[in-house]
Amino acid sequence: MSLTQEMFAIAPAMGKANLSAGQLKLLAGKARWIFRVCEAGFPTVPTIVLTRACWDELQAERGRRDMRLRAHWVACLYKLVDKDGKPPMLVVRTSAASHNGGLMPAKVGIPAPGAPEDSVDPARPLARAIKQAFESYGFSGAGWGASRSDEERARQIVLVQAVAGGEVEQFLTRHATTGALGPAALPGSPLPRLPESVGALVSLLDAKAGRHMACLVSVDKGKVLFLSARPVQASGDADLNAAVDRVHRKVWTPQGAVTRVDPNRLALMLHPRLKSSEGVSPIAMGLGVSPGAASGAIVFNAEDAARLRARGKHCILVVNETGPADIEGMKAATGILTARGGMSSHAGVIARITGKPCVAGVRNLSVDTTEMVARIGDREFRSGDRLTIDGGDGSVYVGTLPLAQPQIGGAIGTLLGWSDSSRTIAVRTNVETVDSAATALSFGAEGIGLARSEHMFFSPERMVALRRMILSEDEDQRSLAINGLVDFQTGDYSALFSAMRGLPVNVRLFDPPLHEFLPRTDEEIEETAASLGLAVRALRLRLERIAEINPMLGHRGVRLAITYPEILQMQMQAVLAGARAASEALNLTIPVEVMVPFVSTATEVSWVRERVFNILNNSGLVRSDRVKFAFGTMIELPRACLRAGDIAGMVDFISFGTNDLTQTTFGISRDDAPTFLAAYQRKGVYERDPFVTIDEKGVGEMIEIAIARGRAANPRLKIGICGEHAGDPASLRFFAGLGVDYVSCSPYRVPVARLTLAQASA
Amino acid sequence: MSLTQEMFAIAPAMGKANLSAGQLKLLAGKARWIFRVCEAGFPTVPTIVLTRACWDELQAERGRRDMRLRAHWVACLYKLVDKDGKPPMLVVRTSAASHNGGLMPAKVGIPAPGAPEDSVDPARPLARAIKQAFESYGFSGAGWGASRSDEERARQIVLVQAVAGGEVEQFLTRHATTGALGPAALPGSPLPRLPESVGALVSLLDAKAGRHMACLVSVDKGKVLFLSARPVQASGDADLNAAVDRVHRKVWTPQGAVTRVDPNRLALMLHPRLKSSEGVSPIAMGLGVSPGAASGAIVFNAEDAARLRARGKHCILVVNETGPADIEGMKAATGILTARGGMSSHAGVIARITGKPCVAGVRNLSVDTTEMVARIGDREFRSGDRLTIDGGDGSVYVGTLPLAQPQIGGAIGTLLGWSDSSRTIAVRTNVETVDSAATALSFGAEGIGLARSEHMFFSPERMVALRRMILSEDEDQRSLAINGLVDFQTGDYSALFSAMRGLPVNVRLFDPPLHEFLPRTDEEIEETAASLGLAVRALRLRLERIAEINPMLGHRGVRLAITYPEILQMQMQAVLAGARAASEALNLTIPVEVMVPFVSTATEVSWVRERVFNILNNSGLVRSDRVKFAFGTMIELPRACLRAGDIAGMVDFISFGTNDLTQTTFGISRDDAPTFLAAYQRKGVYERDPFVTIDEKGVGEMIEIAIARGRAANPRLKIGICGEHAGDPASLRFFAGLGVDYVSCSPYRVPVARLTLAQASA
Repeated sequence: MSLTQEMFAIAPAMGKANLSAGQLKLLAGKARWIFRVCEAGFPTVPTIVLTRACWDELQAERGRRDMRLRAHWVACLYKLVDKDGKPPMLVVRTSAASHNGGLMPAKVGIPAPGAPEDSVDPARPLARAIKQAFESYGFSGAGWGASRSDEERARQIVLVQAVAGGEVEQFLTRHATTGALGPAALPGSPLPRLPESVGALVSLLDAKAGRHMACLVSVDKGKVLFLSARPVQASGDADLNAAVDRVHRKVWTPQGAVTRVDPNRLALMLHPRLKSSEGVSPIAMGLGVSPGAASGAIVFNAEDAARLRARGKHCILVVNETGPADIEGMKAATGILTARGGMSSHAGVIARITGKPCVAGVRNLSVDTTEMVARIGDREFRSGDRLTIDGGDGSVYVGTLPLAQPQIGGAIGTLLGWSDSSRTIAVRTNVETVDSAATALSFGAEGIGLARSEHMFFSPERMVALRRMILSEDEDQRSLAINGLVDFQTGDYSALFSAMRGLPVNVRLFDPPLHEFLPRTDEEIEETAASLGLAVRALRLRLERIAEINPMLGHRGVRLAITYPEILQMQMQAVLAGARAASEALNLTIPVEVMVPFVSTATEVSWVRERVFNILNNSGLVRSDRVKFAFGTMIELPRACLRAGDIAGMVDFISFGTNDLTQTTFGISRDDAPTFLAAYQRKGVYERDPFVTIDEKGVGEMIEIAIARGRAANPRLKIGICGEHAGDPASLRFFAGLGVDYVSCSPYRVPVARLTLAQASA
Repeated sequence: MSLTQEMFAIAPAMGKANLSAGQLKLLAGKARWIFRVCEAGFPTVPTIVLTRACWDELQAERGRRDMRLRAHWVACLYKLVDKDGKPPMLVVRTSAASHNGGLMPAKVGIPAPGAPEDSVDPARPLARAIKQAFESYGFSGAGWGASRSDEERARQIVLVQAVAGGEVEQFLTRHATTGALGPAALPGSPLPRLPESVGALVSLLDAKAGRHMACLVSVDKGKVLFLSARPVQASGDADLNAAVDRVHRKVWTPQGAVTRVDPNRLALMLHPRLKSSEGVSPIAMGLGVSPGAASGAIVFNAEDAARLRARGKHCILVVNETGPADIEGMKAATGILTARGGMSSHAGVIARITGKPCVAGVRNLSVDTTEMVARIGDREFRSGDRLTIDGGDGSVYVGTLPLAQPQIGGAIGTLLGWSDSSRTIAVRTNVETVDSAATALSFGAEGIGLARSEHMFFSPERMVALRRMILSEDEDQRSLAINGLVDFQTGDYSALFSAMRGLPVNVRLFDPPLHEFLPRTDEEIEETAASLGLAVRALRLRLERIAEINPMLGHRGVRLAITYPEILQMQMQAVLAGARAASEALNLTIPVEVMVPFVSTATEVSWVRERVFNILNNSGLVRSDRVKFAFGTMIELPRACLRAGDIAGMVDFISFGTNDLTQTTFGISRDDAPTFLAAYQRKGVYERDPFVTIDEKGVGEMIEIAIARGRAANPRLKIGICGEHAGDPASLRFFAGLGVDYVSCSPYRVPVARLTLAQASA
C-alpha cells in the first residue's frame, strides 16, 4: 500500500469513504467506530486519519522540498470541509487499539491551516497536535513501546476531525451494571438530555461493537452528530444481560452469544466479590487459593468462629496454617487467611471444597495464638478487628469493603442453557457431600467425576475413626478401626448417590496424604491420644515412625490398597451397600464408578481390579439392575501416562488428575512452590502458573501420549479430567482439543466449564 | 524326534556316541560333561540316558504288551557292556539342569536286568531307581514344579551308568578360593591321591566348562575313569583368577574372559564382605543402602565413634536416623545402622559417598539416646556391644563375624585392563572430595561426572557457613554468608581439579534439599542458634517458615539459582578460580563442566546459561588455555525429558539424574518407599526395585524420548548418566543400548561399570 493510501477520510463531509481493504485494516480504536457509524448513514462529524509512517514521510518531504504527499494530505483536509466551503476548526484525537492512560487528550479548536505548507509545519498548531498525539503512543507505559514492533508503530493512526457545533455529550450504549440498552449515564455522571434520534445510534453501535461503548456526540438544535466512541468495561452481570438482550433483539444468535462471553468473567461472577477496590490499597498480598471475597471480624480458632457464626456474624479465620483440627472453624468462618501454604495446602483444598474464599501464604503475616494477635508487617490485629480478603487475587484489606453476592439464574441461566445445546463434552463435579452436590446440580453438573472418599472424614468424630485406622499398629487394630468406618461410609455413599438421582458418581478409592490427616500441634496430639486411649508418648513414637519426608510421593493411593487390602474391601462394600440403598429408595439404577488413584504400573491396576470385581461379584448386585458398575483409574503420574496402553485394556475409563501430574512432571510440590513461583513469574521463567493453566508443552504432552496409547488399546475407553485445571477456561480449551469425554471441576466452576466447552465445540 | 531317539548312550562301552543335534540338546546337567569328556577321548564310565517321555512310554507299552520301545531300551543297556560281554552292575543318577537339594542321590550297585521285561518292571531295582529319580525332580521345591511346562518335564533325563571298579574319588578342577588349576580339594575334605593322568581330565573339563567343577572319578590300579561332574560356586576371587589363568592358557581370549565374568559378582568383591554367614541368623533385616559388611562396637554418637576410631577400634553407629550433625560420627564409624530411612536417606547418601557399609530402615530397631540403649525386637544393646552388618543384603548379626577385605589389582586389574580395550562408553565417578577422587582413579575412573557441590559442606565449620546462607533473612545477610563460603569453595575446587590431573570434572550447581542441611533436634537447633548468634526462638521461627512439606519437590536445584542469583555468582567464581589455580599449579588445561540441576523448562536453562557465560567471559579465562569449559544440564524431571529438544540447543551436554527421574516418573519418594516397596515386591507388583535397576518401560522411555529429541536438535550433544543406576549392571546394559557417551557412578562401582560396558560393547 502506498503512503498516499495511508491518509484518508473515514467520515468525509460529503460523499462516501470508499475504503480499500488495506485501509480498513488500519482502523484501530475510535476510527473504527467513526467509520462504521458514518458508513451506516448516521450523521457523523467529518473525520480523516493518517498513519505515523505517513506523518514521518510528510516531515521528510519538507526537507526535500518535495510536495507529492503533502498535496494528498491537503486534499484529505479538504474532505473535512462541508458543502458551505468554510474550513472548520479542527480536533486532533489519538485512536489506539487499546485504551491507555498515557495518551494525549483530544486537542480541540485548532484553526485550519492557512496554507498547504502550514499543514505540516511542526511550529503550527495542527502539526504540533498531530506530533504530540503520535509521541503520546510512545510514552504509554514501561516496556510497552519496547515490545511493539517497528511495523506496528508505523501503522499507528491519529484522527483529525472538524469541530462540531452545539453541546458535546457523553453516554453509554448500555447501562453499566444492568446491561439494559441505553442511552445510559456514565458512572458518576447524570444522563444528559438527548434527542430521540440518539436511539438509532445506540442500537447501531451496540450491534456493531457487541459490547458496552462510551459514546461522544454533539447535540445542536435537536440534531445528534456522532463524534467518537470507545469500548468500556462493564460488570459481568451487565455483559451477560446485554448478551442475552442482543439475542432477543436478533442482533446475535444464541450460539453467537455463547461464543462471545468470556468464561473468566463468568468465573468471577460465581462468588461474592468486591464491589470495587478503587481508592483502597491492600495491606498484604498472598495467594488467592479459593476465589471470592469475604469480610468480617478476625478469629483465631474454631470456637470463636462458631460463636460468631451462631450470632449470624461474618468472620475471617486467621491462622499460620490449617490442619484437620481447623475444619470446623473453616466451615464456620466466612473466609480464611493463612501465613503459609499454597494452592494445594490443606487450607486451599478445604476452602475450595467448602466454597470459602481463602488467601494463603501471606509471607509477612504471623499469628501468635498465645497472645491472640496477628501481625501483618508492623501492624497488629486482634480478635474482632475487621479484614476483607479477595481469594481471587490474594489481596488483604483492612476493614469491611462492600461485597456483591453471586447471582445464578437470569441471564446466566439463559446463556448456559444455550451453551448446553452446542456442547459435546460432559461437565461433572468434584464433590463428596450432599450439600456440595446440591450446589453443583444447581449449577448444571451432569454427575460426580471425583468423590474424594477420604474427604468424607472431615468431621471430629470421623476424624477420630480415620486416625485410629491410620495409626493402627497391626492388622487386628486396623480391622477394628475399619469396622468403625463402614457404617459412616455406607450412609455417606447412600446419601450421595441419592442426591445425584441416577447421575453417575465416581468414587475415588481412599487416598489420604498422611500429613493432612494426622495431629500436629501438642494440643491435637494430646486430644488424639485421649480419643484413641493411647499414652501421648506412645502416640508420638507412632507418629514419628509413620512420618514421611515427602508425603506427596509417599504411601498413598493405590499403594495403600495393595499394602492394606482390608481398607479396599471395606470401602468397596460400603460403596456397593450405599448404592443398593439409594437404588431401592429411589427405584433407579445407580451408575457407580470406582477409581484407583496414583497408579504407576498396569500391575497395580490388575491387582486392584481382581479384588474389586471379586467383591462386586459376591455382592449379588451384578445381575440386578440396581447398579451399573464401571471400573477405572486416575492417571496422575508420568509413568501411568506412558503405560496407558497396558492399563487401558483393564479399565472402562481413565481420569487425569492434572494436579499431581503437574507436580510430578515439573517436580514441583504445589504446597512449597510459593517460595519460588513468584520470582519465576517475575523473572519471566514461567509465563503462567502451571497449577492454574495446564502446561500444554509438558503436562499436556503427557496427557496426549496417554490418550493416544489408551484409545489405541481400548477404543471404548472413556476419558475424563478431574484435576483443578478442569475449571480453567484456557485449560478446558486444550482438553476439548484432545477429545476427552468429560471434565470434572469444583461446583462453582461448573458453569465456567459448560460455557467454555460450548465455545470449544462451536 | 521319535522316542527311540530319546534313549541313547552318551558314553558307550565301545565305539562312539554319534549323537544327533536333538540328542545333544537333551544333555542337561552331568550328562553334558560325561558326553564331552568321553567324546574328547578321556576314559569314561559307560553311560546311557533316557527322557521322562521315554520312560512313561516304556511303562505304557507294558500295558499294551507292545515291545518296540523296550527292544531299543534293552539295546541301549547293552551299550554299557564292555568287550568282555559281562553285564555290569548299574548306577542310576539324576542329571538336572540346575543343582537342587531334593534330587535323588545316586543309586549304586543295581544288578543288570536278568531279562528284557525286567528292565521296565517297576518292581525290579533298575526300573524302581529310574522311577524314583524322575519323581525326585517333581519334589524339588515349592513352586518350581508348578512353573515348569509339561514339555520341559517330558525332556528331563536320568542316567544309567555301569559301576566302575576301584576307589571313587572327588576333587575340584580349580582351587575353591585361589582359582588355581587343580586337581584341588573340596572345601572341608583332604585332596585324594590321584594319578598324574587326572591332570588331562582337569584341563579338559576346565576348558569345556569354563568354571569350577566338582569331579567324580574312579581310580583303579592307577587308572582314572571319569564318572560325573557338576559345576560349583567358587568365590569371586577364585572365579576372576581362573578367568585370567584361562586366558594365559589360551583357553579363552581376553575378550572372552571379559564377557564371561558376572559384573554383579565383581560388585560384591569391591567391599569388605562376610566370609560366610553359614550357621548364623540375622537378628534383624533392613535395607542394604550402602554395600559392604562391617562389624564393631555399638556407638550412639559422633564423640564415641571418634574416640573408638582414635584407638583404632571398629564401631557401628546406631541411630534412629542421621542428619548433618552425624556426619563426623559417620566418617569415624566403620558402619552405620539406622531405624528409619531408605536408599536416598541422608544416611544412605553419606554412607555411599564415604564408602561406609550401611543398613537403614530396620523397622524393629529403636534407639533411646537418653538411656543409651538400642532395642531390636525385645533384645537390648548398649554401647560397646558388638554387631555385624551387611550393607549388601541389609542383614544385622549379633557379635563379630569374620570379614574379607576387597582386593584391587591382580586378576581384577588384568581383567579390567582387557575390558577397557573393547569399551566405547566412558566411565566417570560421582565424587566431591580428594580422597574419594583418589579411590575412584585407582578404580579406573576417567573423570568426575557429578561433583555435588553442596556435599563439600559436610564438616562442622562449613555446615555453619552453609546454614547461615540458607537461613539468611534477606539479600544482605545472604551476601555476607556467601562471602564466607567463597574461600572454602575455591580451595575445594582447586584441590579436586588438581587431584583429577586434567581429566574432566563436572560440577553440579548447588542443589541442597533443605531438610538434609538444617538442624533438627533441640540440641542441633541450640548449637546452630549459638553459632549464628541468633536467639533459639528466632531460629525456630525461621526454620518453621522455610520448612517444606515435600522438600524433594521444593525450592532446590535451578530454582535456587534463579531466586538467589548471588549463590550462582559465588559458585561460578569459585569454580573458575579453583580451575585457574589447579591449571597454574599443574600446568595443564582443566576441562571444567558446569551442570544445572533440576530443570523443567528451557527458559530456566537459558536464564542460567546467560549468567554463567557472563561470569566466564568476565573471568579472563575464555581465551587462555587454562580452562576448557562446557555447560550442561541434568535431566531428572519428566518435563525436561519431553523438552530436551528445546534444551539441547543451549548446552554442550545433558546428564540424566536417574534417581530423581525415577522418583518423579513413578511418583515415589525413595526415602518413604520402604513402607510399601517390600509389600510390592512380595505381592509381585514390582519385579525389581526401580531404584536399583532402571525401569526400562517407564523411566527408560523418558530417557529414550529425551535422547532422541536432544540429539535431533543438537547432533554434537554429549549424553551422560549420573544417577545411581549407572553402577548397576542390568541398567548399564540398557544405557549402553541407548548410545550414551558416558556414565558416572560411585567410586566402588567404577570397575563394575567398566566391565559391564565392555561386555555391552563386545
